[in-house]
Amino acid sequence: MKKLINAPDTVLSESLDGFAEAHADIVLLGEERKFVRRRTLKPGKPALVSGGGSGHEPLHAGFVGFGMLDAACPGQVFTSPTPDQMIAAVAEVDTGGGALFIVKNYEGDVMNFEMAAEMAGSEVLTVITDDDVAVETSTYSLGRRGVAGTMIVEKVVGAAAEAGMGLGALKVLGDRVNAASRSMGVALTSCIVPAAGTPTFTLPEDEMEMGVGIHGEPGRRRVKLEGADAIAEEMVAAIAGDLGRGGDALLLVNGFGGTPAMELYLMRHAAGKALAKHGIRIARGLVGNYVTSLEMAGCSLTVTLLDDEIARLWDAPVHTSALRWGL
Amino acid sequence: MKKLINAPDTVLSESLDGFAEAHADIVLLGEERKFVRRRTLKPGKPALVSGGGSGHEPLHAGFVGFGMLDAACPGQVFTSPTPDQMIAAVAEVDTGGGALFIVKNYEGDVMNFEMAAEMAGSEVLTVITDDDVAVETSTYSLGRRGVAGTMIVEKVVGAAAEAGMGLGALKVLGDRVNAASRSMGVALTSCIVPAAGTPTFTLPEDEMEMGVGIHGEPGRRRVKLEGADAIAEEMVAAIAGDLGRGGDALLLVNGFGGTPAMELYLMRHAAGKALAKHGIRIARGLVGNYVTSLEMAGCSLTVTLLDDEIARLWDAPVHTSALRWGL
Repeated sequence: MKKLINAPDTVLSESLDGFAEAHADIVLLGEERKFVRRRTLKPGKPALVSGGGSGHEPLHAGFVGFGMLDAACPGQVFTSPTPDQMIAAVAEVDTGGGALFIVKNYEGDVMNFEMAAEMAGSEVLTVITDDDVAVETSTYSLGRRGVAGTMIVEKVVGAAAEAGMGLGALKVLGDRVNAASRSMGVALTSCIVPAAGTPTFTLPEDEMEMGVGIHGEPGRRRVKLEGADAIAEEMVAAIAGDLGRGGDALLLVNGFGGTPAMELYLMRHAAGKALAKHGIRIARGLVGNYVTSLEMAGCSLTVTLLDDEIARLWDAPVHTSALRWGL
Repeated sequence: MKKLINAPDTVLSESLDGFAEAHADIVLLGEERKFVRRRTLKPGKPALVSGGGSGHEPLHAGFVGFGMLDAACPGQVFTSPTPDQMIAAVAEVDTGGGALFIVKNYEGDVMNFEMAAEMAGSEVLTVITDDDVAVETSTYSLGRRGVAGTMIVEKVVGAAAEAGMGLGALKVLGDRVNAASRSMGVALTSCIVPAAGTPTFTLPEDEMEMGVGIHGEPGRRRVKLEGADAIAEEMVAAIAGDLGRGGDALLLVNGFGGTPAMELYLMRHAAGKALAKHGIRIARGLVGNYVTSLEMAGCSLTVTLLDDEIARLWDAPVHTSALRWGL
């Protein structure tokens, strides 16, 4: 295993320390590193709290800040955070407006956030994201997996919370953005979880995993590596078919961590051509490593159909370490 | 070779098309894709023009926009752009203030930018960056290589140009920022140039290339992989020893493309500890993939000693696809 680490069991704590040092203007690290919180809270605003296994950076801690999350609870790599983390986070960032949990649909995450919601001394509502169209159930999930669409939900709901929307309406909005979002990914290589030390899966030199999950879970099919246009067309066909209609959309071309920017932009071009055939027009977009799987090579496409409200909230100012505009 | 591409010879053109589509609010693609230019030029401002081989994205096209570059000329992967590209770029973006070339110190780049400077119908001055302390001469360079410090020069000089500084003063400032900057990198794996199809170099599973160049050129020594703290200490010792003094500094922890954010933040923590021992205080910072080598695993550290002017210009608003704040 070739990694820039000192020891597998201190990767998370040292990485969180570096993150908090690098972005001390935006975030604070909670006691015992149970959560990363926004440095300056807005009194009375419902608190947006997310989290999940580490290894998907910048998701979620990179999205803590003005206009997005109030706290993120990092589990060990690809492992759910424990309920005490979310309970501690809510106790610190709920300033009277209650808390909204944004949770990717994996059994461990859903169970632990649910337990925390019951035990937290606050009113808590939860949005579960399940935007991955690749498979209907998977290794760690009942029902569809929550993947890169999660950050779209966090951005849009975060902007609405900043603008004064109440907890109940935020939950409805979050569910609506999730329902308007579809994703699909492809892996060319596996990642290596530090504690395991060996690749999560092996893929022959000429094959790809179409529909891969963000922990390297199996997708729809393992096939010979194709050209970028053919890959984009297959992912877009799955996404567009599931959306069932065209229109203006936000396109996220998301790198899994090990794919160069040149290839992500090439995929952006390929996806644009494929989306046009399905009547989907890219009105907003983002290209980069946002919801990763450590150093996995590959990418995912996420399409969110826009309406005026979602577009306006997407455009609203945001100031986090990984997403920043308008400020 | 596992890449998200259609064919090796269309990687650059398709990637540039995707880049221009993704950031149409900020950039325009020049005729025959000779350059990427800022969409809205500022009349009379000296034009900042950079460029170099592709494969280092977001450098340089990702830094075209308000407060940074006016144009970037992309060569094929790891291959210098040709003089006609820079000549065409200058013709389009010089609005009367002349042009400043910012060129990484590689023989091909220096020669081609020099030829363009002579043939361009504008007054042109040139800043050569050579911030890499690893080796004194290298495969493609006479003298030190220009690496990630180049983006610091582009940011600081870009802010000064935006604020009204004239061409001669910008050249002096650029040289001064370069002279205040030192970098060193380490590689854990090689990258694969699409046209070659095979790794640029091979590194045993337990070794690293200390002092690697951004094209995979040899560094100081090839040794057994060490822990992150030891790696950071060696790089910081080389940088601090060459700087020769401490003080407030900007630290860039730059990923080469294939290293996860978790590891880059862990290296940020390790570098902070090491810098403190040398009397260098991190007053500004940046962590991420900014000057990459396709999918190479590894990272570099860049330290720029700050004075009030450099710090103020670093903090000034910037609006490019890869660096954005204050707007």
